[in-house]
Amino acid sequence: MRVGVLTGGGDCPGLNAVIRAVVRKGIPEYGYSFVGFRDGWRGPLEGLTMTLDIPAVRGLLPRGGTILGSSRTNPFALDDGVDRIRKTLTDRGIEALVAIGGEDTLGVAAKLAEEGVHVVGVPKTIDNDLSGTDYTFGFDTAVSIATEAIDRLHTTAESHHRALIVEVMGRHAGWIALHSGMAGGANAILLPEVEFDIDQVCKWVESRFRSDYAPIIVVSEGAKPKGGDEALVSGATDAFGHVRLGGIGDWLAREIESRTGKEARTTVLGHVQRGGTPTARDRWLATRFGLHAIESVHDEKWGQMVALRGTDIVTCPLSEATGTLKTVDPGLYAEAEVFFG
Amino acid sequence: MRVGVLTGGGDCPGLNAVIRAVVRKGIPEYGYSFVGFRDGWRGPLEGLTMTLDIPAVRGLLPRGGTILGSSRTNPFALDDGVDRIRKTLTDRGIEALVAIGGEDTLGVAAKLAEEGVHVVGVPKTIDNDLSGTDYTFGFDTAVSIATEAIDRLHTTAESHHRALIVEVMGRHAGWIALHSGMAGGANAILLPEVEFDIDQVCKWVESRFRSDYAPIIVVSEGAKPKGGDEALVSGATDAFGHVRLGGIGDWLAREIESRTGKEARTTVLGHVQRGGTPTARDRWLATRFGLHAIESVHDEKWGQMVALRGTDIVTCPLSEATGTLKTVDPGLYAEAEVFFG
Amino acid sequence: MRVGVLTGGGDCPGLNAVIRAVVRKGIPEYGYSFVGFRDGWRGPLEGLTMTLDIPAVRGLLPRGGTILGSSRTNPFALDDGVDRIRKTLTDRGIEALVAIGGEDTLGVAAKLAEEGVHVVGVPKTIDNDLSGTDYTFGFDTAVSIATEAIDRLHTTAESHHRALIVEVMGRHAGWIALHSGMAGGANAILLPEVEFDIDQVCKWVESRFRSDYAPIIVVSEGAKPKGGDEALVSGATDAFGHVRLGGIGDWLAREIESRTGKEARTTVLGHVQRGGTPTARDRWLATRFGLHAIESVHDEKWGQMVALRGTDIVTCPLSEATGTLKTVDPGLYAEAEVFFG
Amino acid sequence: MRVGVLTGGGDCPGLNAVIRAVVRKGIPEYGYSFVGFRDGWRGPLEGLTMTLDIPAVRGLLPRGGTILGSSRTNPFALDDGVDRIRKTLTDRGIEALVAIGGEDTLGVAAKLAEEGVHVVGVPKTIDNDLSGTDYTFGFDTAVSIATEAIDRLHTTAESHHRALIVEVMGRHAGWIALHSGMAGGANAILLPEVEFDIDQVCKWVESRFRSDYAPIIVVSEGAKPKGGDEALVSGATDAFGHVRLGGIGDWLAREIESRTGKEARTTVLGHVQRGGTPTARDRWLATRFGLHAIESVHDEKWGQMVALRGTDIVTCPLSEATGTLKTVDPGLYAEAEVFFG
Repeated sequence: MRVGVLTGGGDCPGLNAVIRAVVRKGIPEYGYSFVGFRDGWRGPLEGLTMTLDIPAVRGLLPRGGTILGSSRTNPFALDDGVDRIRKTLTDRGIEALVAIGGEDTLGVAAKLAEEGVHVVGVPKTIDNDLSGTDYTFGFDTAVSIATEAIDRLHTTAESHHRALIVEVMGRHAGWIALHSGMAGGANAILLPEVEFDIDQVCKWVESRFRSDYAPIIVVSEGAKPKGGDEALVSGATDAFGHVRLGGIGDWLAREIESRTGKEARTTVLGHVQRGGTPTARDRWLATRFGLHAIESVHDEKWGQMVALRGTDIVTCPLSEATGTLKTVDPGLYAEAEVFFG
Repeated sequence: MRVGVLTGGGDCPGLNAVIRAVVRKGIPEYGYSFVGFRDGWRGPLEGLTMTLDIPAVRGLLPRGGTILGSSRTNPFALDDGVDRIRKTLTDRGIEALVAIGGEDTLGVAAKLAEEGVHVVGVPKTIDNDLSGTDYTFGFDTAVSIATEAIDRLHTTAESHHRALIVEVMGRHAGWIALHSGMAGGANAILLPEVEFDIDQVCKWVESRFRSDYAPIIVVSEGAKPKGGDEALVSGATDAFGHVRLGGIGDWLAREIESRTGKEARTTVLGHVQRGGTPTARDRWLATRFGLHAIESVHDEKWGQMVALRGTDIVTCPLSEATGTLKTVDPGLYAEAEVFFG
Repeated sequence: MRVGVLTGGGDCPGLNAVIRAVVRKGIPEYGYSFVGFRDGWRGPLEGLTMTLDIPAVRGLLPRGGTILGSSRTNPFALDDGVDRIRKTLTDRGIEALVAIGGEDTLGVAAKLAEEGVHVVGVPKTIDNDLSGTDYTFGFDTAVSIATEAIDRLHTTAESHHRALIVEVMGRHAGWIALHSGMAGGANAILLPEVEFDIDQVCKWVESRFRSDYAPIIVVSEGAKPKGGDEALVSGATDAFGHVRLGGIGDWLAREIESRTGKEARTTVLGHVQRGGTPTARDRWLATRFGLHAIESVHDEKWGQMVALRGTDIVTCPLSEATGTLKTVDPGLYAEAEVFFG
Repeated sequence: MRVGVLTGGGDCPGLNAVIRAVVRKGIPEYGYSFVGFRDGWRGPLEGLTMTLDIPAVRGLLPRGGTILGSSRTNPFALDDGVDRIRKTLTDRGIEALVAIGGEDTLGVAAKLAEEGVHVVGVPKTIDNDLSGTDYTFGFDTAVSIATEAIDRLHTTAESHHRALIVEVMGRHAGWIALHSGMAGGANAILLPEVEFDIDQVCKWVESRFRSDYAPIIVVSEGAKPKGGDEALVSGATDAFGHVRLGGIGDWLAREIESRTGKEARTTVLGHVQRGGTPTARDRWLATRFGLHAIESVHDEKWGQMVALRGTDIVTCPLSEATGTLKTVDPGLYAEAEVFFG
């Protein structure tokens, strides 16, 4: 059997490890051959391919990024998208597809499966907000990088008697903020799931300064102030007519400075969180996802994706992962509050 | 209520994070006060204590080791051990104990609970071989350190056309070897759970050399050759009458050299795997264990320990963790074999 | 002899290592006793002190920040500043001062020495822009952190076909940008020493994209465009009347996007560069500086500071370090240009 | 001009960075073309080559090892070695050679230069024991890895009340032990340059235990006890007739245990020290060495090698580097002693 592989959506440490595992198991164990599709769904749409054999996946395990490239192309946005994909697969004798991606990529995979295309999915997001799986690979790496940054900021916060704000990824879910904030010993953690009260945040800041320590606040890029005027936080234009780049972290710094009279500074970690070599745990998870994905192809589990449950890799319908976002449970967030202030 | 806390057994990254979480939640939320017992069960036996309040746990989250010290003292090895512990608790008005440790420490805790002592447990082992919990803290850190070492050895193996052997911890269970071997891209992984065939190992070594790469073999300290004369592997004395320090890693190097004619070298990672700052994930797990342990004290769940199941922290009887060792499942090991050779 | 020690100016990895070395050598070898002054020159001005003996410096070697605290207080800004310092020293029987700091702190030390105060200096700046010494401690740590971030950004840049800009510290000198840019394989490095041509930068960006790779640009916070209207770059207020936080990195991203039509994103590393544990090299340098500083006290080299020349620690007049800034030599910068584009 | 490049001797982080810099400057700036010789001097002896153009050096900067491979082949051990090298160069129109290596490789280069071959050298050794240059690349990486290991061992040493010994590389010179020992806060450092007194070592161990801390001893693999029977330390055979693998670290552990009655354990870091990605500083140094090496080719500085002096890259005769080993100066070692015990 000839199997196509593609990666879609944002960069995520572990993508290459999945590709390697799929190929390393599929060739010797099932006798499959592989075709790499380039740049997500653009690959099968436009017939962009690359060789994907054992030599092609040598050395991939520790490497960040994806050798297949990625894009956010959506075949369902085109009238003949599905037909073109079908034609590419038929023309090249490809009988199954392994699609590695997040909500959008897997959403396309789910719809293609409904249309009869033989596809299995591998869930991917550094934000960890996909339902159906306990964790996604890339998340542990992002949390590690953010935690290391928080570790470093502690000494600076104290030497300068400043509040330091760390803005981390997470537009809709606060998993990275919650995990790195707890692992880094943050004095406040602000998530998209719970609108924060800027007065309360300032109280935590002041209480921390009173005990002669300097506060560290970890905030998801998608966090919002209670009853906040959204215009204040994002989307506004600056004095030059450009859309203002400063996000919630910068807004927090200004508010804390003006309300408490203490200096505040923001670090926006940005893309540093999603690049580079995966942690050992993410390599383990990505590798196991790859091994089970190709097993699912062999078992003809079309329309399913691999998922982590406890210590087991299971399969579940793609629709499960792409239906609703997995957000931080209020009870879990409440656990962290004992460390605030 | 006055609560005692102790840590027993070997060093493990995350011990201090548990202690901190217990104290940071117990004082403000339940109004408890704490007593730190020094050096494991020796503390309550001999009345060795230290202050354990909020200032005492400042800065503990990222620190390796345990501020309470540790030991392998077993009160049940003494005639009056239990009575002495009871007396210490009564004398100092201590109504509950949080015992953080591995099989031995928790085994004592289980027996004390049967004798009516109010104790809850927190599972700890870098080997990850305690039943009842998906993972223990410290394990992720050990795997990370071993994986980073394997990463570094790859380039050296190739430049020198040598087989490189990495001996990692795991006397009875091969979890560290399996996880770091898969995350590091090892060409063979040898565990205590499955006696290995030295001929097969040499075949993998030779096949790897043939494809112009150099093999990396990860071996648990407790792995054994099939039908092997144990004397060959350990416990033998050297030319000076000392017990030979060289373990299974050294033995493998010699066998591979004499059987394949290729150079082989061994790195024994040793205690480096169990010291130093915990990974972000281990800090998260240790912190949540601590929070739930003190909640279990509040809920009077005597004789129970906290445990990770999926993404939840639950409680289970201490006896569950200390009954049988959690070893690597053959099916899981088989998953890794596709990468051998 | 009784010796005072103080640290001034911004946070810098290695400060604690210097303090430790001074004390660990001064007590056993010369029989000195030590007084720690708190918060830079505020300490001797206001008589704020702390104990500084062997137990006080335990565990300090790997710790970021400074146990003595820091400030930017300048005694020469006060009418009676020098007299108050003299009085503090006399009252407490302190015969010599070790002042650890950058241009400002050492500038004060130089003037105090001229007034007859017994002071020796230890140069400190993560920017590496102090004259008189080959390197300062903290610089290697800052470069390492910036390089690791650049490493991670490479994969993201390529997966997303974006230009990525990394803004690093360096208001007046581009040492961190130059070293991390060369170590990280940047496609352009922009320094305060040489005004850059935005057209040339865009040419490099486009040439890089043409060869199917994504460009990484490292820019010092103090870099400026040729003939640039400064108002465009910094100091301008945003739509809310706040001083705009966005720096040269954000400006570059906007210019590149509008001129090349390619996406561009900026990461501002900020305080992450100056906190946390020092690299091995910075610990070595800081420790040797501390050892030689206390030797200089013993040799009564008042008004001198320790300095690195090649592999030797020497002493030189404090005025040498505080006269002119050590900026990047154009020849050295030219070396890097072969890697641009 | 056509230029050959080769790497000889042991693995060393930064080799690939040198190769990349040579090629990245030589092609666009001087219009040279390059030939990669494989496996050290075996390459030009046997005519083993590989393509070395801009695409071939992509991504090499952070990669450990050497894409050219290495060996310890010595053309002067063959009757017709020099003639064969000359013939290879003539046949392929190669007019100059860049030889990157340690004492042996550069020794060959020096002799070939005397015979009229156009060769320039780049010094390489993780041991830092080459004369003529302040530092060699790879050394900073080795010291960093050893220091990180020592950091981790501190907590373990203390929790278990054990002496911990770390055996690091350095057969003839103790630079790695000295630097990592000082950076890691070791309680004793033992070097090849100064025979140690085992009684003194045990006194340090006992004094450290008395102050309730656990000692860490860093020892070069080439260190020797005063008046020691060499047979006791190395080269002896074990009970199975194999040459005993245990080195000075194991010997020290046994002696300390039997003399002090305290437990002692050894970690042999081994090849982990010489593999993997170079530190930022080593990438900087390796890159600058490469840039200046190809400049030296352009300037026809045959028989010279590049070297670091202070912050400058200079050139010096190859004979300078290969004459006498650069060992640790007793004065420098004495500086460290204040931290022993």
